[in-house]
Amino acid sequence: MFGSYLERVRAVRPLIHNITNYVTVNDVANMLLAAGASPIMADEPQEAAQITALCSGLNINLGTLNARTIEGMLAAGVRSKELAHVTLLDPVGAGASDLRTQTAINLMDAIGFDIIRGNISEIKTLAKGSGTTRGVDADPGDVITEDNLPEMIHFAGDFAKQRGYIAVITGAIDLVSDGERCYVIRNGHPRMSRITGTGCMLSGLMTAFAAANPAHLLEACAAAVCTMGLAGEIGHKRLLAGEGNATYRSRLIDAVDQMTGEDLEQGANYELR
Amino acid sequence: MFGSYLERVRAVRPLIHNITNYVTVNDVANMLLAAGASPIMADEPQEAAQITALCSGLNINLGTLNARTIEGMLAAGVRSKELAHVTLLDPVGAGASDLRTQTAINLMDAIGFDIIRGNISEIKTLAKGSGTTRGVDADPGDVITEDNLPEMIHFAGDFAKQRGYIAVITGAIDLVSDGERCYVIRNGHPRMSRITGTGCMLSGLMTAFAAANPAHLLEACAAAVCTMGLAGEIGHKRLLAGEGNATYRSRLIDAVDQMTGEDLEQGANYELR
Amino acid sequence: MFGSYLERVRAVRPLIHNITNYVTVNDVANMLLAAGASPIMADEPQEAAQITALCSGLNINLGTLNARTIEGMLAAGVRSKELAHVTLLDPVGAGASDLRTQTAINLMDAIGFDIIRGNISEIKTLAKGSGTTRGVDADPGDVITEDNLPEMIHFAGDFAKQRGYIAVITGAIDLVSDGERCYVIRNGHPRMSRITGTGCMLSGLMTAFAAANPAHLLEACAAAVCTMGLAGEIGHKRLLAGEGNATYRSRLIDAVDQMTGEDLEQGANYELR
Repeated sequence: MFGSYLERVRAVRPLIHNITNYVTVNDVANMLLAAGASPIMADEPQEAAQITALCSGLNINLGTLNARTIEGMLAAGVRSKELAHVTLLDPVGAGASDLRTQTAINLMDAIGFDIIRGNISEIKTLAKGSGTTRGVDADPGDVITEDNLPEMIHFAGDFAKQRGYIAVITGAIDLVSDGERCYVIRNGHPRMSRITGTGCMLSGLMTAFAAANPAHLLEACAAAVCTMGLAGEIGHKRLLAGEGNATYRSRLIDAVDQMTGEDLEQGANYELR
Repeated sequence: MFGSYLERVRAVRPLIHNITNYVTVNDVANMLLAAGASPIMADEPQEAAQITALCSGLNINLGTLNARTIEGMLAAGVRSKELAHVTLLDPVGAGASDLRTQTAINLMDAIGFDIIRGNISEIKTLAKGSGTTRGVDADPGDVITEDNLPEMIHFAGDFAKQRGYIAVITGAIDLVSDGERCYVIRNGHPRMSRITGTGCMLSGLMTAFAAANPAHLLEACAAAVCTMGLAGEIGHKRLLAGEGNATYRSRLIDAVDQMTGEDLEQGANYELR
Repeated sequence: MFGSYLERVRAVRPLIHNITNYVTVNDVANMLLAAGASPIMADEPQEAAQITALCSGLNINLGTLNARTIEGMLAAGVRSKELAHVTLLDPVGAGASDLRTQTAINLMDAIGFDIIRGNISEIKTLAKGSGTTRGVDADPGDVITEDNLPEMIHFAGDFAKQRGYIAVITGAIDLVSDGERCYVIRNGHPRMSRITGTGCMLSGLMTAFAAANPAHLLEACAAAVCTMGLAGEIGHKRLLAGEGNATYRSRLIDAVDQMTGEDLEQGANYELR
């Protein structure tokens, strides 16, 4: 089933508006192109709403937010929802500064996202104000394991139900919940934490999958997570002796570029709880 | 002949000032270095004119423009022309928002560029206000083909003559016109549309070719287009099984880095109309 | 000895706050991850001081400074020193514009850095106001050679002693001086000047080495220089036929990712004067 969601991205070629950080923005753009989508980046408040109107999905990422781009996020987000476009928040570093936490909360209040994707520390911060973050990474004490999986699924579901989001919590094990059902995904490779931008790329990819498959948001989000994780596995297998994290980054994007629907169908490793 | 223009870039090593988007800026810098030029990026209005004065060419790209950088573009552009430096506009997304269209027009009025390089939709927007764009890509219905080539050459020429620009319209077939003569270039590979930044990299490269060969602007621009297109062909040939768009991006820059004047001479595929 | 400094980075995994340019920021992040450190980028004045407080080192780079980020640099730098975190300045382009020179001087006055790393032209500008720069590269007439080495060591020492910095001057030969002792380092490869960001990556790396080895700042800085230079040598050896500067960039980061303490121990090429 997930294979068809990737094929649909390639058929529809959704144009995705990204207001994202300048650290990983190039990788997000190339990842969207790899999946068959088309990226546009525009963060100036004077044009953000108009650009969003041309697109079919909006990906807001707080990675290097500033006073000006926060205004752009707000303008674009409100317009995106008015037009019923898929709208995603990646609350990078929520919990690391008051500005990030407060901006995430303000955007959630004003916009009402369809999807929120973060690591467990970021989502905890948004859910209960109790998470701690280690910069932009999850706190090591704050991790989803096989042991705490039932309670984490419960937590994701509660967060999702709070306001009707799809909640996506990514880590060694990934959870995608709409409050009723939860996909538990075990694709991926530990090496992915050794490159910057895997989360940002996934958020872009997920916006594209959701924009191309709007009637199946939960499955589309889960399919995007599997695509990224499977790419991490394939990219790792393709690494040659002496190659490290920079080459791994390219191989990961390459793997999405070369992935067929059938590859995804066969490689996706998930269960539905 | 074109080979000598590349060799001249390597001999002169022109310093090129780029006010460009944060999506593809790293690729623009490495592409300039690959060609033998030297990049500097500076968009703050307080220093933009002074930085430009150190350089021999200015590349203005509207990719992620904002209120502050627009001021920087204006200050740098005016100073660059006062100093008779080669000055290029890449109107990324003109037609996609009023801000982009209006900024392009304002800069054209205030600065008077030597070269304008865009896709057909962007240039149509600037020429007649009639283009449509699909984000930062050309509208699929808006394309240069062998069938409409004569009228497109005419269109490019008219646009060039309007204000004495070199007009460069890139796509599957590329046109480089000064209003009298038009180079029609058939280098390149379809895969180039699957990576972000090929247009931005070309604009940087073109500014360097023009800055190093100021007495032959039309030919220098055409040589830059051939260099980029030939690199796209070489990069494609060098792709191994399983490699995708991210590796292709590196191979494309690598191909310019490794290209000799003789390679370009032999690989350039153009006709003069 | 230097090998243990790299191992210490991997053991401590320092979180490094970078206020750096948007040209090479992705490479800086991946380089920090390659070394075993963790990067965070945040330049908004509203959060810069709070983000720095989470970290153990701050890397300020003037590459694409603007009025807003200068405020962020100041706020973060002052806080970083209050907390006795390692604080580094990379004065990219000092001498190229009054804004860059003056900002570097203002930050030096207000913050009091532990480490200043630049090319010889930038450091001369800061030391005596007499350097000239060619954009962001050192002036070709301004270079450290075996012939002028004694006087350059003297110059680095004087600059270091002025305010108690570690002075790091990088080029074909690198100098790392605390005013009393000077490491002279001959690792590296000429190809490194053909990619953007080697200096920026080194500054990030150096902040991480210093943050993880705060009791041995001079040696930690020298070890970072050797790591980067050795990576340049290894990356060059691993280049295949037809590969150019873009692939070299990846191989350089890969080489740090794959480098062991023992590799560094054996490959470091330095003398202490």
